[in-house]
Amino acid sequence: MSSRFFPHDIIQTDAVLSLDEDTVLSTNEVDFSFIVWHSFPDRIVGYPARSHYWDNSKGRWGYTSKWTNEFSMVLTGASFYHRQVLLYIPRNICHLIYKWYYHYLYTHYLPTSLHSMVDHMANCEDILMNFLVSAVTKLPPIKVTQKKQYKETMMQQGSKTSRWADPDHFAQRQACMNSFSSWFGFMPLLHSQMRLDPVLFKDQVSILRKKYRDIERL
Amino acid sequence: MSSRFFPHDIIQTDAVLSLDEDTVLSTNEVDFSFIVWHSFPDRIVGYPARSHYWDNSKGRWGYTSKWTNEFSMVLTGASFYHRQVLLYIPRNICHLIYKWYYHYLYTHYLPTSLHSMVDHMANCEDILMNFLVSAVTKLPPIKVTQKKQYKETMMQQGSKTSRWADPDHFAQRQACMNSFSSWFGFMPLLHSQMRLDPVLFKDQVSILRKKYRDIERL
Repeated sequence: MSSRFFPHDIIQTDAVLSLDEDTVLSTNEVDFSFIVWHSFPDRIVGYPARSHYWDNSKGRWGYTSKWTNEFSMVLTGASFYHRQVLLYIPRNICHLIYKWYYHYLYTHYLPTSLHSMVDHMANCEDILMNFLVSAVTKLPPIKVTQKKQYKETMMQQGSKTSRWADPDHFAQRQACMNSFSSWFGFMPLLHSQMRLDPVLFKDQVSILRKKYRDIERL
Repeated sequence: MSSRFFPHDIIQTDAVLSLDEDTVLSTNEVDFSFIVWHSFPDRIVGYPARSHYWDNSKGRWGYTSKWTNEFSMVLTGASFYHRQVLLYIPRNICHLIYKWYYHYLYTHYLPTSLHSMVDHMANCEDILMNFLVSAVTKLPPIKVTQKKQYKETMMQQGSKTSRWADPDHFAQRQACMNSFSSWFGFMPLLHSQMRLDPVLFKDQVSILRKKYRDIERL
């Protein structure tokens, strides 16, 4: 699983569009999220949002896919991110600037133990990427609105073929949250309450006037 | 009109909530836009969006309040902005940092000729503030979703009492666009296609689960 983020030399564009094999996106959706990514090039910009929370009863971090009023992860099954990131190290009024690549950081900065965990379970590589990017940026990811039938479509597909059908899948992801935060030494994920929609999204004007009209069709 | 942006010593909060006398906002709307402003503290964050365009037939800048797929101004009749802004002047790998206040820049950096124009017409101070902030940030403002009946409410109120009823009002605003861009020497306004909505905005889940439920009620 970790190999999906390997820093291949062949990747020369600034933007990386990461997709799972069963992801369904319209061209409108790709176009709009690419526009949004231009405004937030150092963050993960995409569709499926998840959240973390502190589970008091169990004394550990929890993971939820419920639709709530906030999120802290955007899954890399359908998202844009920059292949590189600029790290600013403040030194008085000067800043030393380092240019890093997210794929490079994922592959060479993160330890073998986390890679092995991800590869062994064939799970959580998307959570780990969210930990990494938020640890670097100190910012939450960006959620873009999506057509709501995807969830059902993906679950139907999942019930036949994909890894989402695995009953252990969710429990594994809970475990990942805690292993990852333990290695980082803190919880880098941050919550956001905002979603990025096209300006006229769901406004009561003719659909013909809307540039990204496919996004709001059910 | 220019005095609304005077740098009064009494303003000590970082956020300034600017409102016209006939603006109607719910607490949900103020709460959400304040949350959004936290993520974009150097930009104007608010509701009524307008746009500029180049009018080829007249060879001048145009101003429009039509609901289109992009905008370049958010009117200060209902918006948040920071009382100050950090200006970074790059010097090799060092950055000199100056702290300026938008009210100070509006009052002391902009020339008397533009202040006089605004005061004489009792119009365009909101456009001028958008020119100023975009010239500083090199970024467009942030539009937050709003309840749609405001437009009608404001127009009804306008037909009785407010300056929006003045038939010259729109023509004046066209003229302002061109006077302002002439003084700046370029067009600082930039377009955006994004709107900031609460995560569950218009999603098909119970309204009771939504934190900012008033925003989407018609």
